[in-house]
Amino acid sequence: MKKITAEILTIGDEILYGQILDTNAQWMSYELDQLGIKVVRKTTVGDNEEDILTAFAEAEDRADLVLITGGLGPTNDDLTMPTLAKYFGSDIILDEHVLAHVKDFFEKRGREFTELNRRQALVPELAEVIHNSLGTAPCTWYERDGKVFVSMPGVPHEMKNLMKESVIPKIRNFFNTPVIYHRVIKTVGIGESFLADKIKDWEDSLPSHVALAYLPSIGHVKLRLTAVSDNREILKQDVQLLIDQLMPLAEKYIYGYDNTSLEEAVGQMLIEEKKTIAFAESCSGGFIQHKMTTIPGSSAYFQGGLVPYHNQFKIDLLGVKTETLEKHGAVSEECVIEMAERVREKFNADIGAASSGIAGPDGGSDEKPVGTVWIAYADGKKTIAKKLQLTQNRILNIELTEISVLNLVRKSLKA
Amino acid sequence: MKKITAEILTIGDEILYGQILDTNAQWMSYELDQLGIKVVRKTTVGDNEEDILTAFAEAEDRADLVLITGGLGPTNDDLTMPTLAKYFGSDIILDEHVLAHVKDFFEKRGREFTELNRRQALVPELAEVIHNSLGTAPCTWYERDGKVFVSMPGVPHEMKNLMKESVIPKIRNFFNTPVIYHRVIKTVGIGESFLADKIKDWEDSLPSHVALAYLPSIGHVKLRLTAVSDNREILKQDVQLLIDQLMPLAEKYIYGYDNTSLEEAVGQMLIEEKKTIAFAESCSGGFIQHKMTTIPGSSAYFQGGLVPYHNQFKIDLLGVKTETLEKHGAVSEECVIEMAERVREKFNADIGAASSGIAGPDGGSDEKPVGTVWIAYADGKKTIAKKLQLTQNRILNIELTEISVLNLVRKSLKA
Repeated sequence: MKKITAEILTIGDEILYGQILDTNAQWMSYELDQLGIKVVRKTTVGDNEEDILTAFAEAEDRADLVLITGGLGPTNDDLTMPTLAKYFGSDIILDEHVLAHVKDFFEKRGREFTELNRRQALVPELAEVIHNSLGTAPCTWYERDGKVFVSMPGVPHEMKNLMKESVIPKIRNFFNTPVIYHRVIKTVGIGESFLADKIKDWEDSLPSHVALAYLPSIGHVKLRLTAVSDNREILKQDVQLLIDQLMPLAEKYIYGYDNTSLEEAVGQMLIEEKKTIAFAESCSGGFIQHKMTTIPGSSAYFQGGLVPYHNQFKIDLLGVKTETLEKHGAVSEECVIEMAERVREKFNADIGAASSGIAGPDGGSDEKPVGTVWIAYADGKKTIAKKLQLTQNRILNIELTEISVLNLVRKSLKA
Repeated sequence: MKKITAEILTIGDEILYGQILDTNAQWMSYELDQLGIKVVRKTTVGDNEEDILTAFAEAEDRADLVLITGGLGPTNDDLTMPTLAKYFGSDIILDEHVLAHVKDFFEKRGREFTELNRRQALVPELAEVIHNSLGTAPCTWYERDGKVFVSMPGVPHEMKNLMKESVIPKIRNFFNTPVIYHRVIKTVGIGESFLADKIKDWEDSLPSHVALAYLPSIGHVKLRLTAVSDNREILKQDVQLLIDQLMPLAEKYIYGYDNTSLEEAVGQMLIEEKKTIAFAESCSGGFIQHKMTTIPGSSAYFQGGLVPYHNQFKIDLLGVKTETLEKHGAVSEECVIEMAERVREKFNADIGAASSGIAGPDGGSDEKPVGTVWIAYADGKKTIAKKLQLTQNRILNIELTEISVLNLVRKSLKA
């Protein structure tokens, strides 16, 4: 079957001149990929009628589906709607439904409705209008010779809501796309090539309707399984069976699926085991606690923590022994173990975890170069410490320490 | 004078399919804008020879300058270099300088040099090769009929280094671009429209060769002054004079210039005043301490801090009075003041600062809805507390609390 092709077109001077990062195009192309639609090009043009018309014609020539965002505001420099009308040779009409929605939208927020806002209800007559419940700029849908144009607002949460609620279902229906089932397996604590080596036999045995992609990012590798056929339930079963087969090979690295983050996965484990946690962070400077507390409801298991950035506070506030620091220094197995054990006691937690290292760029020595980090876990029964040799980059070292500490907690909870 | 136009072309399936966010294109277009070059289009195509050739031809037709990134790896799916050779009708040769560099690069990192890596030294004969000191993929420069193509690696830090060190100077020289001088003034603690109102008279009086742009982001508004003429020193003086005139109107909101971050600015003030600081964070969960410790050398002024996420630890570890929590609750002026004063004492710091609030999505009440946050500053002589009414979004509330606390410290240090 010939693959449906798509082009993503972003309209707006603020994107073209680099004032805004275009995150919409990435999100949309990922979603289209999940539908089995092949994105063949991404284009950005400015708020200029001629450039927009050229881009429309080129896109229609290249692709079956054109997804457009931006240029839908009420001011004169927003040209997408009148240019779509011109391109499709359509009159512009005032849509009473949109007008009522815009008026209502302003009223509910106690904002004044002006003549300028009325423009938001002007749409090409031949367009199908799709209701935008989260904003005032309407979404419009155009069909010509088996091809589809969709125009959406550039505000990310409005666009995403429209895509999920209306546009994707309509695309599936119009193009009669095959069923594609994706499952992302998230791993931590192993590099891409080592993981590939471990799961080679499993990868080689994958059936032809299931594809595997390695998606590495800082400290993590995601495995994406993509299965295509015409029955979603069977696909789900197929993929689950493959994951079951993968487990004996890679279970210790897998912390979750799809959009689960490491801090969410650790939080979920703590909830299931009814355990609480506290952190003593030196080189990671509060970043572990920050990540943990981004998760709603984390107060159920996160007790709190300390950032004793100077040695004196490791002694005074945490209770690390003076002798330990004098004999071994702060970046040592002995110190980080005491930090984890003491913070556990101080915060009356089931688990204590700690970091101490040299984030850089200064502070390294021959014996302990920049990137030397000790981390530890303590739960009252066992204490585990681990040495990391990280990078020359301060920010990266902070991130990798956070991931390593949470992974140490995860593995210890699992053990 | 006619403006030089540019197109930015990104090559790679991983960008097209949404697996990677393209941050390079934004960075490059911002830099070109700073040079006074008008970006007329951004394009992304996949690893496909025909699509790349089409994109080259379209770009050459539209723009004077074409900046290309990506597709320069050593594997078969990386097509940029052979396709450039084909497009410009050039033979491919082995560049001995590049080969020596690649071999040296691998040797220094203790990695094996393979036949595959040798491919990185294959370049079109008519290209001018620009040395990439940070990686193995060479940068190449092409001229034809007064137009320029530049091909760069997609790895962001390699591309940025090449642009700054070599490509931008070559572009300035080739196109004889006018001198453009930019100065970004960074403000915090005031919304865009309020700031615009305060500085209206100053804005109206700007000379014609200086343009002003408002660039808002979360919690901040940047003012960018862009001045164009043919003498850089005079421009610098002109812009400094305008900033001097702006000061009486907006001084209290200005924390820095160009790339200075708020945490850097506060750190610099602490160094200058020889003062140290500690934080007690409840709702911000360690994020303030994280931001402070991203700055190299922050151990000179950052003593450390506490995240007493549960009330008991505000009492036991920080020394907040039980009565305060019983009578006023944790999210109160009384509690946050004690937190700031106590953390200052505990960490033997000149300054203590604190946050306590309801980040959400749960935990709100009629009296104290989600987004209610108290922050405080204490320096032994004075204590200042402030109530914030933020949003329904947990992550945004954490970020806005961090910015507000650092801004409170900044303003108090200035006072």
